[in-house]
Amino acid sequence: MRRSKRSEVDAFIVMDVMEAARAAEAAGRHIVHMEVGQPGTPAPEAARKALGRAMDAGALGYTVALGLPALRARIAGLYREWYGLEVDPARIVVTSGASGAFLLAFTALFDSGARVALGEPCYPSYRQILRALGMEPVGLRTLAEHRYQPRPEDLAGAGLDGLIVASPSNPSGTMLDREAMTALIEAAAREGVSYISDEIYHGVHYDRPAVSALEISDDVYVINSFSKYFSMTGWRVGWMVVPSDHVRTVERLAQNMFICPPHASQVTALAALDAREELDANLAVYRRNRELMLKGLPAAGFSRIAPPDGAFYVYADVSEFTDDSRAFAAQILEEAGVAVTPGLDFDPHRGGGTLRFSYAAATPEIELGLERLRAFMQARGHVPPAG
Amino acid sequence: MRRSKRSEVDAFIVMDVMEAARAAEAAGRHIVHMEVGQPGTPAPEAARKALGRAMDAGALGYTVALGLPALRARIAGLYREWYGLEVDPARIVVTSGASGAFLLAFTALFDSGARVALGEPCYPSYRQILRALGMEPVGLRTLAEHRYQPRPEDLAGAGLDGLIVASPSNPSGTMLDREAMTALIEAAAREGVSYISDEIYHGVHYDRPAVSALEISDDVYVINSFSKYFSMTGWRVGWMVVPSDHVRTVERLAQNMFICPPHASQVTALAALDAREELDANLAVYRRNRELMLKGLPAAGFSRIAPPDGAFYVYADVSEFTDDSRAFAAQILEEAGVAVTPGLDFDPHRGGGTLRFSYAAATPEIELGLERLRAFMQARGHVPPAG
Repeated sequence: MRRSKRSEVDAFIVMDVMEAARAAEAAGRHIVHMEVGQPGTPAPEAARKALGRAMDAGALGYTVALGLPALRARIAGLYREWYGLEVDPARIVVTSGASGAFLLAFTALFDSGARVALGEPCYPSYRQILRALGMEPVGLRTLAEHRYQPRPEDLAGAGLDGLIVASPSNPSGTMLDREAMTALIEAAAREGVSYISDEIYHGVHYDRPAVSALEISDDVYVINSFSKYFSMTGWRVGWMVVPSDHVRTVERLAQNMFICPPHASQVTALAALDAREELDANLAVYRRNRELMLKGLPAAGFSRIAPPDGAFYVYADVSEFTDDSRAFAAQILEEAGVAVTPGLDFDPHRGGGTLRFSYAAATPEIELGLERLRAFMQARGHVPPAG
Repeated sequence: MRRSKRSEVDAFIVMDVMEAARAAEAAGRHIVHMEVGQPGTPAPEAARKALGRAMDAGALGYTVALGLPALRARIAGLYREWYGLEVDPARIVVTSGASGAFLLAFTALFDSGARVALGEPCYPSYRQILRALGMEPVGLRTLAEHRYQPRPEDLAGAGLDGLIVASPSNPSGTMLDREAMTALIEAAAREGVSYISDEIYHGVHYDRPAVSALEISDDVYVINSFSKYFSMTGWRVGWMVVPSDHVRTVERLAQNMFICPPHASQVTALAALDAREELDANLAVYRRNRELMLKGLPAAGFSRIAPPDGAFYVYADVSEFTDDSRAFAAQILEEAGVAVTPGLDFDPHRGGGTLRFSYAAATPEIELGLERLRAFMQARGHVPPAG
């Protein structure tokens, strides 16, 4: 059988790192995991208990395609709590993770050959999902001095159909402030470019809260997830907020493409929305880890880092040490026992000179990882011995 | 914001029926549900217990994209048990329901504009997912005397890229025997048409076992699910078996499009595979219900029905009573309190003269539904009064 052209997407390089780390662990080594983009914590206890009760009470068959009405209403409540916004629950679409939301959003908005822009570095699957759907991803080169985020002038005359912006961003953790996001949304509107705001790291921010695109415009797609702040990666449940006149279109697509998001995950997510104490305790760990990273990475010679406004990543420019981040990450794993992600996953052009460090693990692991990184860099002469 | 052309898919008509049934129930009426395509039973008790234990034991984060290795190995065991087949677990891809499998299969096999055939009547989402992916569904008109299944001669010179065949079929419940399926797979190979076998109703068959396309060829995509026999619709977990040289392609797509199937659902599915006693008890109910239907539907005047070899549906030709199955179904709901599905969902051309009756509900409900249907048809003069 023939394979399609559109199926020729790139692999996740981080998967190779994870496999190498797993093999090292199987051989008896201890590995610090700074490669994985997920919390080490489970879904909140109250949420798991709620699912236990639901499993005893009913069959957990299909839900309606847009998701449990109670969950959609409760997500609307989150917009009140987090941003002081009134969002009509009818505009909220529960999805099979943010992944399912991307599939629905791109399908609802774009046809074959559509040109959809993303600021590089970015979450690699944007590009691959667009390709898999027969669309054309257009990489916009972003700069450290612009917090690795796209700029309004990138859109002018670029013949774009859409733009995906993540704030906080993966891999950089940088955010757009209200002014910058407003300028970008207005430029997109002017150019007839559909604006998709990836807000899956909302809730995981430090010095100032993340701005939602919904604070600026209703004529955008906003994508969020229970994976990160709510600590539910493996449950595959997220949501979208879409313009009112797109709801019916998205509903028909969701009926056919997904039938519904996982019922058990929806029940768990609904209870997770009220488990703020446990979730804020997780956040306190990230906050502590972030402080350790901001001190420990420069001490280990990784001083050219993006300002990590949110999420649980630090994106480092390591081009003074290597132009092959994949080999460099392999060396760090092999010699230091620390798994990190080569920047090539996020930026096919300049990622040979960058690494992403995740600090979602437990604090003692982060401390150990930073120690090991410093010893590794010292041994290579990249940083003077500890004074 | 503009919506795409590809997003202009049809709604599920059955959703309107379900909504009307819900409204009637909310107004205090009792409705017999013969419209829904899912078991009323929950996931097996042992499976739910296994998930309870897993939630206490670990974080249930992302799994690898192809699914838990133990689950893939256990599904390979099912091919031994059901068909006496040895299938390499490496070829088994756990998916986010059969829906996720369709998205992966179509993307792996077909490019924009590809012509993919389906025998009408069929599961409506085949057509809509293909459209949503920028492909062209090609309806093949099937005949009752061919068990509503496509024939080898349908493929000759039709310029097709792919063919989807379900056995047992939804809505008709008919199966292809080994000879017919072999002829179809050979014709597809001859014409260079990729063959996708939808086997999600396997395990739910009555007089003879369903034949898997894998018994005939390894050069096919086989799609299955835990929704029907395993009674896990809302859990959104299924699987595919793909040719060995397609695994890496599908893995890359799955990494990017889904990250992984829901972890909790995978844990539940693994345990469900060993809950045969409870599942076979469910099957005994379908068997009893089927006998009641095969007696009760003709007694109610619905005598032109397809042979229901498997699944839990009876597809009835009602063109002697109506050419508007949608209005007819609405009348049956309104006057008889029985929800049924108009054939238009499954066959846009001839479905105005057909209805699908599901018998997945509990037996007393089926008995009551058949009684109500007979009374309705008697009142309209379509069947003589009971003697």
